[in-house]
Amino acid sequence: MSFNTFGHLFRVTTWGESHGPALGATVDGCPPGVALAEADLQGWMDARKPGQNKYTTQRREADAVEILSGVFEGRTTGTPILLLIRNTDQRSKDYGDIAAKFRPGHADITYHQKYGLRDYRGGGRSSARETAARVAAGGVARKVLGDLAPDLRIVGAMVRMGPKAIDPEAWDDAEIGRNPFWCPDAGAAADWAEYLDGLRKSGSSVGAVIEVRASRVPAGLGAPIYAKLDTEIAAALMSINAVKGVEIGAGMEAATLTGEANADEITMGPDGPVYSSNHAGGILGGISTGQDVVARFAVKPTSSILTPRRTVTVTGEETEIVTKGRHDPCVGIRAVPVGEAMLACVLLDHLLMDRGQTGGERGRIGA
Amino acid sequence: MSFNTFGHLFRVTTWGESHGPALGATVDGCPPGVALAEADLQGWMDARKPGQNKYTTQRREADAVEILSGVFEGRTTGTPILLLIRNTDQRSKDYGDIAAKFRPGHADITYHQKYGLRDYRGGGRSSARETAARVAAGGVARKVLGDLAPDLRIVGAMVRMGPKAIDPEAWDDAEIGRNPFWCPDAGAAADWAEYLDGLRKSGSSVGAVIEVRASRVPAGLGAPIYAKLDTEIAAALMSINAVKGVEIGAGMEAATLTGEANADEITMGPDGPVYSSNHAGGILGGISTGQDVVARFAVKPTSSILTPRRTVTVTGEETEIVTKGRHDPCVGIRAVPVGEAMLACVLLDHLLMDRGQTGGERGRIGA
Amino acid sequence: MSFNTFGHLFRVTTWGESHGPALGATVDGCPPGVALAEADLQGWMDARKPGQNKYTTQRREADAVEILSGVFEGRTTGTPILLLIRNTDQRSKDYGDIAAKFRPGHADITYHQKYGLRDYRGGGRSSARETAARVAAGGVARKVLGDLAPDLRIVGAMVRMGPKAIDPEAWDDAEIGRNPFWCPDAGAAADWAEYLDGLRKSGSSVGAVIEVRASRVPAGLGAPIYAKLDTEIAAALMSINAVKGVEIGAGMEAATLTGEANADEITMGPDGPVYSSNHAGGILGGISTGQDVVARFAVKPTSSILTPRRTVTVTGEETEIVTKGRHDPCVGIRAVPVGEAMLACVLLDHLLMDRGQTGGERGRIGA
Amino acid sequence: MSFNTFGHLFRVTTWGESHGPALGATVDGCPPGVALAEADLQGWMDARKPGQNKYTTQRREADAVEILSGVFEGRTTGTPILLLIRNTDQRSKDYGDIAAKFRPGHADITYHQKYGLRDYRGGGRSSARETAARVAAGGVARKVLGDLAPDLRIVGAMVRMGPKAIDPEAWDDAEIGRNPFWCPDAGAAADWAEYLDGLRKSGSSVGAVIEVRASRVPAGLGAPIYAKLDTEIAAALMSINAVKGVEIGAGMEAATLTGEANADEITMGPDGPVYSSNHAGGILGGISTGQDVVARFAVKPTSSILTPRRTVTVTGEETEIVTKGRHDPCVGIRAVPVGEAMLACVLLDHLLMDRGQTGGERGRIGA
Repeated sequence: MSFNTFGHLFRVTTWGESHGPALGATVDGCPPGVALAEADLQGWMDARKPGQNKYTTQRREADAVEILSGVFEGRTTGTPILLLIRNTDQRSKDYGDIAAKFRPGHADITYHQKYGLRDYRGGGRSSARETAARVAAGGVARKVLGDLAPDLRIVGAMVRMGPKAIDPEAWDDAEIGRNPFWCPDAGAAADWAEYLDGLRKSGSSVGAVIEVRASRVPAGLGAPIYAKLDTEIAAALMSINAVKGVEIGAGMEAATLTGEANADEITMGPDGPVYSSNHAGGILGGISTGQDVVARFAVKPTSSILTPRRTVTVTGEETEIVTKGRHDPCVGIRAVPVGEAMLACVLLDHLLMDRGQTGGERGRIGA
Repeated sequence: MSFNTFGHLFRVTTWGESHGPALGATVDGCPPGVALAEADLQGWMDARKPGQNKYTTQRREADAVEILSGVFEGRTTGTPILLLIRNTDQRSKDYGDIAAKFRPGHADITYHQKYGLRDYRGGGRSSARETAARVAAGGVARKVLGDLAPDLRIVGAMVRMGPKAIDPEAWDDAEIGRNPFWCPDAGAAADWAEYLDGLRKSGSSVGAVIEVRASRVPAGLGAPIYAKLDTEIAAALMSINAVKGVEIGAGMEAATLTGEANADEITMGPDGPVYSSNHAGGILGGISTGQDVVARFAVKPTSSILTPRRTVTVTGEETEIVTKGRHDPCVGIRAVPVGEAMLACVLLDHLLMDRGQTGGERGRIGA
Repeated sequence: MSFNTFGHLFRVTTWGESHGPALGATVDGCPPGVALAEADLQGWMDARKPGQNKYTTQRREADAVEILSGVFEGRTTGTPILLLIRNTDQRSKDYGDIAAKFRPGHADITYHQKYGLRDYRGGGRSSARETAARVAAGGVARKVLGDLAPDLRIVGAMVRMGPKAIDPEAWDDAEIGRNPFWCPDAGAAADWAEYLDGLRKSGSSVGAVIEVRASRVPAGLGAPIYAKLDTEIAAALMSINAVKGVEIGAGMEAATLTGEANADEITMGPDGPVYSSNHAGGILGGISTGQDVVARFAVKPTSSILTPRRTVTVTGEETEIVTKGRHDPCVGIRAVPVGEAMLACVLLDHLLMDRGQTGGERGRIGA
Repeated sequence: MSFNTFGHLFRVTTWGESHGPALGATVDGCPPGVALAEADLQGWMDARKPGQNKYTTQRREADAVEILSGVFEGRTTGTPILLLIRNTDQRSKDYGDIAAKFRPGHADITYHQKYGLRDYRGGGRSSARETAARVAAGGVARKVLGDLAPDLRIVGAMVRMGPKAIDPEAWDDAEIGRNPFWCPDAGAAADWAEYLDGLRKSGSSVGAVIEVRASRVPAGLGAPIYAKLDTEIAAALMSINAVKGVEIGAGMEAATLTGEANADEITMGPDGPVYSSNHAGGILGGISTGQDVVARFAVKPTSSILTPRRTVTVTGEETEIVTKGRHDPCVGIRAVPVGEAMLACVLLDHLLMDRGQTGGERGRIGA
């Protein structure tokens, strides 16, 4: 990962600020010959875009993606794909308070310390709006994966909102799209709606845990030692705004287990090895096993709240701040499609890298 | 991160297998003129090396580091530093069982699937022995940090062993070096000793959580958006063998908090901003705030246990395996110096990158 | 260098095709706080843009650069700068011949072989139009160099057109901007005008040699062994369309010299070492000496000529082709500002890298 | 290219100084399953090693390569391969003169200026001795190419020594190995022997041009725009010590040609397109055509000569220097196997990258 680029062979470079004229991504290293149109990306964009219900910021953006290069007669050419997303609702309001004061929990103060100046309008480059470009790039990755690994499927879901976790036994993939929280547990979703409504009205916010899961991932993806598949997924997810923790498989809970409990035993199935469990999250030694790749990440609560918080000004005076304006009471909701997009990009990048190094052939197990 | 290299300007490339003649690292991009001798590295090596007490593998390695290049008359020259560590106790025993059977929870099966062959002796490249090279490189990073950020201090500690966590109130830095677990809580250390002894005798194993903490980190380090300081720390820690989760500051718990609880309020101290708490773990928007950088990672239990586990052979037959030989009942213990080393390398790399882009000057707060 | 990105800390990613809606570049890693406006870039764009006289293609492009991100209140913020250049004269004509036949000397056939399809409109991605994005990025680099190395000056000139070379003794910097060839020798320029007019009318074309020269380059830039300053200049220049050779200092002629003739002897001047000559082209061991950095590159003649050439079709039939349409009789002319831009980017990148590794301090010579 | 690493997927990191205990390379990203033994590399090492005849330095080095990792039971494992070459003849003599004075034309002064100190023993890191590591890595690349592109063949030859060029009509591959100059023209070789003997005795030196040529290169290799195949070959060759110019195909002479003369016309042969000539040097638009890839590079004369040259000391005093000791009167001779090695590494790297992005499938021409 390098400043504003991620990936090795499938490389995504993003740019743009919250309140500039546009933002976007350049997708480089894309395999040629893949059918790709703007419409292929829009569904993913719509999943992330704000203003769709009362639980997300009321900023209204069409988040329409324009493809300015790299596609000819409906197919990728192997040259860089420029994805442009115009900002249309970057209200030209008074930013006085944000310009002069650092919001606690925001990048305001660190951008100022590092760069000596900052685009304070809507958080500038540090705004979660940047993730729109990731989702567009992830849409490209999914189209390519559709050609190269057609059975591979990526699903994200919110599994915890603040103190309230889902019941894993109640997980139903079909439920995820039916509620505004990408919650796979219908009972939890109903509970969360009430809970979040209360928080929203009081001007508060709350954190969340997102799980992203890829099934039918080919075994053999990952590049030990420092570009392990889990390493790169961790980096990809940690780079999303407001993320403070990342887990693979059993995650932090792995620390509490004994070797006996943690072992995923192996037997032979009709198509190769079968595992008794998936504490590994589909990755051993940094390489995919063929099991589901399972990752989770924690999103902290939005720092923009109505309760006054102590802070300082650019000139060093102590003061208080209240962040008004359009914000997400649980920004984790909109992180779900972002997590999916990052996972798609990492998996495709590793598919290409593995094909480069090994030709994509797998060591056999069995006759 | 790229296969066997990590870092951008301060780059570490490691090589070597558990049972080959040697392993090591090439450290490239090191600033010139830094006093460096093999003795500077040995203390860190000794902290990680096996066989020092009954709680770690009984493999006996001197882990002496030889510097073969990049240092002249006791100072770094700015050219690559080759660090060589000979393997001296790679017992030439019968590997029959490991050669033919895949150990559950090990990289055996995925290396086989990816590469079609594997060096099964002691785990080959996937062995935790590779971390010796990281510790040596981390030692170089610490020497350079000693010149460039002399107040910066990195401390690692084990904060959980299986079900048993420390009492954060009992944290005492001075205690860390006094027990074989790098445990900062004397009471917990005594409890763990008894607990781990039981596990060891029964041939079982258990996981752990390690915390690494850097104080006096200059504000302004980090390269948004995809090489954020927390992103790179997460990648660096997740790349360590057996790690399944990584947290920054409040970590996964951030998901359970409200915005009010999570906000680290800011006031002015004599030397700049002061924070009421450190849920952020010293990083906002991917850039250091000047507070302590705090990261934690979960290490899964060693998969090598005496209880038979079901598995398959290379030829696809179902069987059982018991892993005898020298192993760590809690491999997390030896991960403490490794985590410290990775943090040192990441911080130095970002110090150099920041100096490259911004000249190392900080945006002022106050007069 | 990596696909469509070049640079290490100052990184430029370009995208776009000759006949798409737009092309451009993302400039990442730019130092913050540098004054930058679109007007700063336009002068360089105008130097490269087509249609300015009868010796260059009659395509008419305003080549106006729009800055879509990374600048706030007139200063760079340290975040990625998106430079957008709209294509406005990409005539929607019949491409039948070019679509079906491969032009000898063009990338048509290799793009087809590699990617299986190609955007044949105007050469697609392989068009020299891509260099507009480089010039825009080079303009950013020059603004930053203006802050960090204010005395540094970059000048490019055409020193050979086909069989006709300049008289080095007649070199006059002031002459360069006075003729349509960037020729520093007034006599040669007059001669070339007549010569090229003849070629143009006959539908032929001819090659050229360009020299780019940077004066007041700080000593100490360059990153041996594989990112030497000359290595990276060579790569940067060779990546320009139609370039077939690159020289540093004495260049290919160095092969004909004896050690006595080649040695640049050193004496002490008031500001440090002074050299008796500059066969080295300002670079020793891959690191700048402080002398002028001097590079030359050869541009082959445009392949698009009116004389029929034998070729094959996509379906493998033998045929002939004549390339009509708007083309440059000596494409080398427009390569002059491109070469300057690439040199500016490489020098800035190395200035930042050197500052990162060494802090920008120089080893002293003398008291 | 990045400091001491080159390559994208097949990456070579070198380290070591002329007079340290050893030098070497880490080869990362190597495909697994390739038969590899130390003996496979020794032939290439012997071709480069010094002291084999009176025309090269009399330093005596066995240049035996030891493989310390990445190979198991005679096959590459896909993990990094450490290649170690011990220095055995780094005479412990008095370096007083070189330590205090900068040799004109050497990296002494720039290393001092950049790093503030330098390992002056034998040139330290800037010594041509570093190229031994490249040749070893190139040997690995050739073994892999033997599996992936078995017909591909790389041949290097010296085509000019000072003022004396070969007669291209007299080129005979079989002659190359029969004379101490890798000269493909028997008549020229005899002439050169006499010429160089005279230079050697007078303590002088002379430059050379080397041509490296790869035949049966698959079409489609290269990664436009900034990692074009010719760009990367240019970088790889320019990074070799003492190289001042690089040419592809017609090279600098391309500047003198008209479009008619330069066009390589295309017809259909039994196995695909056939070209009437090869001015392109086998590369169009940065992608291989399937023709021979042809590159040349100029090596300047060794700066170490017996004629006194003016220079300055570290303390800034003017003085003279005569470089005694063991040196090459025409260092270009030993650059031939180095150029071959670099070309092998670049071609393999691009073969893997192309396989990663496109799957290695070629767009068809014809039915």
